[in-house]
Amino acid sequence: MTRLRIWAPHASTVDVIVGNERHRLAPRIYGFHEGEVPLADGTRYALSLDGADPLPDPRSRWQPDGVYGRSAHVAHGRDDEIWRGRDLAASVLYELHVGAFSPEGTFDGVIGKLDHLVALGVDAIELMPVAEFPGERGWGYDGVDLYAAHHAYGGPQGLRRLVRAAHERGLAVVLDVVYNHLGPDGNYLERFGPYFTDRHHTPWGRAMNYDGPDSGPVRQFVVENALGWMRDIGIDGVRLDAIHAIVDLSATHVIEELTRRVDELSRELGRTLWVIAESDLNDPKVVRPRGERGWGCDAQWSDDLHHALHTVLTGERAGYYGDFGRMADLAKALRDAYVYDGRPSDFRRRVHGRPAGDLSGHRFLAYSQDHDQVGNRARGERLSQLVPPDRLRIAAAVVLLSPYVPMLFMGEEWAASTPFLYFTDHIDERLGHAVSEGRRREFERFGWPPTDFVDPQSPASFERSRLDWSELSREPHSSMLAWYRRLIALRREVPELRDGRRDLAHVAFDEEQRWLAMRRGPVTLAFSLDRAVEVPLGVDAGELALTGGDGVRRSSDSVRLPAGGVAVLRR
Amino acid sequence: MTRLRIWAPHASTVDVIVGNERHRLAPRIYGFHEGEVPLADGTRYALSLDGADPLPDPRSRWQPDGVYGRSAHVAHGRDDEIWRGRDLAASVLYELHVGAFSPEGTFDGVIGKLDHLVALGVDAIELMPVAEFPGERGWGYDGVDLYAAHHAYGGPQGLRRLVRAAHERGLAVVLDVVYNHLGPDGNYLERFGPYFTDRHHTPWGRAMNYDGPDSGPVRQFVVENALGWMRDIGIDGVRLDAIHAIVDLSATHVIEELTRRVDELSRELGRTLWVIAESDLNDPKVVRPRGERGWGCDAQWSDDLHHALHTVLTGERAGYYGDFGRMADLAKALRDAYVYDGRPSDFRRRVHGRPAGDLSGHRFLAYSQDHDQVGNRARGERLSQLVPPDRLRIAAAVVLLSPYVPMLFMGEEWAASTPFLYFTDHIDERLGHAVSEGRRREFERFGWPPTDFVDPQSPASFERSRLDWSELSREPHSSMLAWYRRLIALRREVPELRDGRRDLAHVAFDEEQRWLAMRRGPVTLAFSLDRAVEVPLGVDAGELALTGGDGVRRSSDSVRLPAGGVAVLRR
Repeated sequence: MTRLRIWAPHASTVDVIVGNERHRLAPRIYGFHEGEVPLADGTRYALSLDGADPLPDPRSRWQPDGVYGRSAHVAHGRDDEIWRGRDLAASVLYELHVGAFSPEGTFDGVIGKLDHLVALGVDAIELMPVAEFPGERGWGYDGVDLYAAHHAYGGPQGLRRLVRAAHERGLAVVLDVVYNHLGPDGNYLERFGPYFTDRHHTPWGRAMNYDGPDSGPVRQFVVENALGWMRDIGIDGVRLDAIHAIVDLSATHVIEELTRRVDELSRELGRTLWVIAESDLNDPKVVRPRGERGWGCDAQWSDDLHHALHTVLTGERAGYYGDFGRMADLAKALRDAYVYDGRPSDFRRRVHGRPAGDLSGHRFLAYSQDHDQVGNRARGERLSQLVPPDRLRIAAAVVLLSPYVPMLFMGEEWAASTPFLYFTDHIDERLGHAVSEGRRREFERFGWPPTDFVDPQSPASFERSRLDWSELSREPHSSMLAWYRRLIALRREVPELRDGRRDLAHVAFDEEQRWLAMRRGPVTLAFSLDRAVEVPLGVDAGELALTGGDGVRRSSDSVRLPAGGVAVLRR
Repeated sequence: MTRLRIWAPHASTVDVIVGNERHRLAPRIYGFHEGEVPLADGTRYALSLDGADPLPDPRSRWQPDGVYGRSAHVAHGRDDEIWRGRDLAASVLYELHVGAFSPEGTFDGVIGKLDHLVALGVDAIELMPVAEFPGERGWGYDGVDLYAAHHAYGGPQGLRRLVRAAHERGLAVVLDVVYNHLGPDGNYLERFGPYFTDRHHTPWGRAMNYDGPDSGPVRQFVVENALGWMRDIGIDGVRLDAIHAIVDLSATHVIEELTRRVDELSRELGRTLWVIAESDLNDPKVVRPRGERGWGCDAQWSDDLHHALHTVLTGERAGYYGDFGRMADLAKALRDAYVYDGRPSDFRRRVHGRPAGDLSGHRFLAYSQDHDQVGNRARGERLSQLVPPDRLRIAAAVVLLSPYVPMLFMGEEWAASTPFLYFTDHIDERLGHAVSEGRRREFERFGWPPTDFVDPQSPASFERSRLDWSELSREPHSSMLAWYRRLIALRREVPELRDGRRDLAHVAFDEEQRWLAMRRGPVTLAFSLDRAVEVPLGVDAGELALTGGDGVRRSSDSVRLPAGGVAVLRR
């Protein structure tokens, strides 16, 4: 027998359907219904509110037949794993999409590639969302069964195997979780209770009810979701999607409540657990410790650094990239984390952000590519499709020698030639059609040939996004991989590169000549984008340790760089 | 000539109409229009956007003919006043409505009553909103010309006279300002620019655009409004109406920006300036100093104390009063400021608030009556219409001996027999009718005889709300006034009563017998609501200094109180 406790304040009765039998739960205060139900590991079941049609359990751990099907009970057994977690500050992260990462497209498929990541020098993988979403393939940001690992990836058992395999290799596993909205298709939460609100809005769907009447169980729903992944599956951290769209005006923001509960669990389990936020707020409170009136996230993604780097490398200025593009912006991102820290933004048409103050660089993730910045382009181009290899080497060096926690996007390390497209498998035809047409319009807006268009609903958009692992051994991919390995090895070797001290990030640059130099302890990075230059580094910058581009030369008090050249010096 | 600078990003041209002449302003960047216009003190003018019909200036300082009329230029001359302001922590505030306070119903009328307030022992008056609102009478929360002192009260010159007269008597002047929404009638701001947003909502009207595109000038509009009252008129502080309805998700909340600018002005002028918030958030960040990551308001209204006190005195439990009613709630309010500091609220159906922590009692205003709690009752009853005089004495003692900054509501000090009703004078007939009908329905909901109903639009609702000053010299009013005077005098005399130390607020109570005792330094307050009791106070509580009710007796280690009795002891 298994004890089920369902929050359904709208319902007078809640029945659990097992086979053809109905088991009525007993009503409890605050809209809960509770009871013992004959569920063994794998038993299918569904819930019926007031005798209506069967629905999946909002906290279903497994949806073997997808979002419309019955739930399956998952009995989490005792686990003898000994694992203490990893130190985020000293880590390099690697973001991947379970479906597109390996040929198999499953959690087990990821296991087969873990040794590549260990050899690369990575410390943690970050999985794009795996919570059950409609269909067999998708990015996962429209998940609806937030507690269920996707059936097409291998379900909860598959995820558990991946986590164990990662831990055996010393790799932590971070999970991308979406608490700002739920996908529209297969979303039955509204039938159960006031999970959503009209008082706030998100760009993607109804806002969740974190501060209105009856918001308590909704807050618990997401907080315990994060805790569940960590406790039951062994996940080491969560990456909170778009927390700027989580509007909560109560005195304790739900994110603060979440980090507090994760810290409590961390002490209970004796394991290091991470909470990483995607935040567009440029507000340091997100990553400030709770004891200093912050929300207590361990780190946040640093889009400002991405945009500053992307624009100087590509020359792109469309949309939000218009707020960046100067070497000064890149230099500021490397020193101050936020480029917009109280500065007027033309794109936003308002003042944006506030200074990061004395926050450690460890509070920020640095990356030159991620699923959004690649995949939200109409043609899904990686940076390697936009700039020549010498600039890719510069991008890698900036990220991996920065005072922040570096993160790579799968395949970046070998300049994969495969795109990362937006792909969906909406079962709801109208929805699928709407997504396709929206994407087509965006594609046309960029003026690209319609023949190049790949429909997100088409299996081809997913197939084309799969990594081609045969590239690894071929040039120019193998050289790029070697460059990434050397940089990561250097970061592991030199403690000052991992100390998170932004005050050590002495940055010099020339806006006209477009070179930049950054010193961090005994290591100095210098690169030149467009022309051969003599960068005045001084004798104490040390000797050349790594170089990219032909003709990098060290003289007594400077380094000579060709156009696109990059030099890493070491004292 | 006067330099005008108008923000009108929607308009191609802005003309200033003076008499029959049009003066075109020159377009500037960011949607501003600027120029020199022949305006002397009192000159009428209007603005025409793109040649359309004349509108008042959004920053009009004077609307001699009301919200639909032309603006009048106000030249603020140099002022030789020497005034350094008052210390909020040591003050007793007095809230009043300019129209209903004096027989004249004007700023000059208030001047005539200031000596009464000085004799009472009050340190500051707080004026309900005076910004120009539609019609001749109203509470003022539907103001539309936020920079203009209401013409029916005497306009900006009248307000300036009142401020001078107050300062001459050592009284500070606080102004209630409404920045969460604007009234619907006579509101032309939308014609000028994106002052409002649909991304957030308020219960009273469209939310202001504090964090969207082009929000910068909107933020400046309200920040400079507060500064203008202080700089040009001599106002000592603002009371920010309902800041919980000011939704601003940007990294620096507009309230924090406002307190920073007020502090800068305070240093510039060498005068103490206050920012007091009405906040329903129960979030200590509102009154925490900016240096400790707070918004930096000097104080906030403490509705929790009001509700706790009101419910134990009246036994009322309707609406939000249902969350209060126990002696324990009153004791908690007196110790912790917030009763709801992370506790589940039945009324709100969610957890509400967080602990005030080590905040000084000076950060909270205490009151047993205010315009809302009296005037939002269908019949506008003061506490003196709800409970007998002995309980009024208890209410006054609790407020005036509390660790917080006490505030009285006009007439409370003599248990005025006049109600304070909701009154309006909407010129827009539809609006006026809607307000009347809404109020009538509320009245019926309470089951009161329809004959008692006073239409808010009727002049009678205003007339009946006027204080009757002839009561002052009659019993039981004069005795009540004496009680208030003695308590205020005691507060002035004993520094520990003004030290704001909540840790000194030793509170004991008996839930069943309904007595409560509070010790603050050398002063101890004890009262009993329903029955004769022996309150065990100990020898060190000192001797009886003030008593209310017959038969209050001090014995060696207790005080005997009759039902409704109150004793103030002093060591």
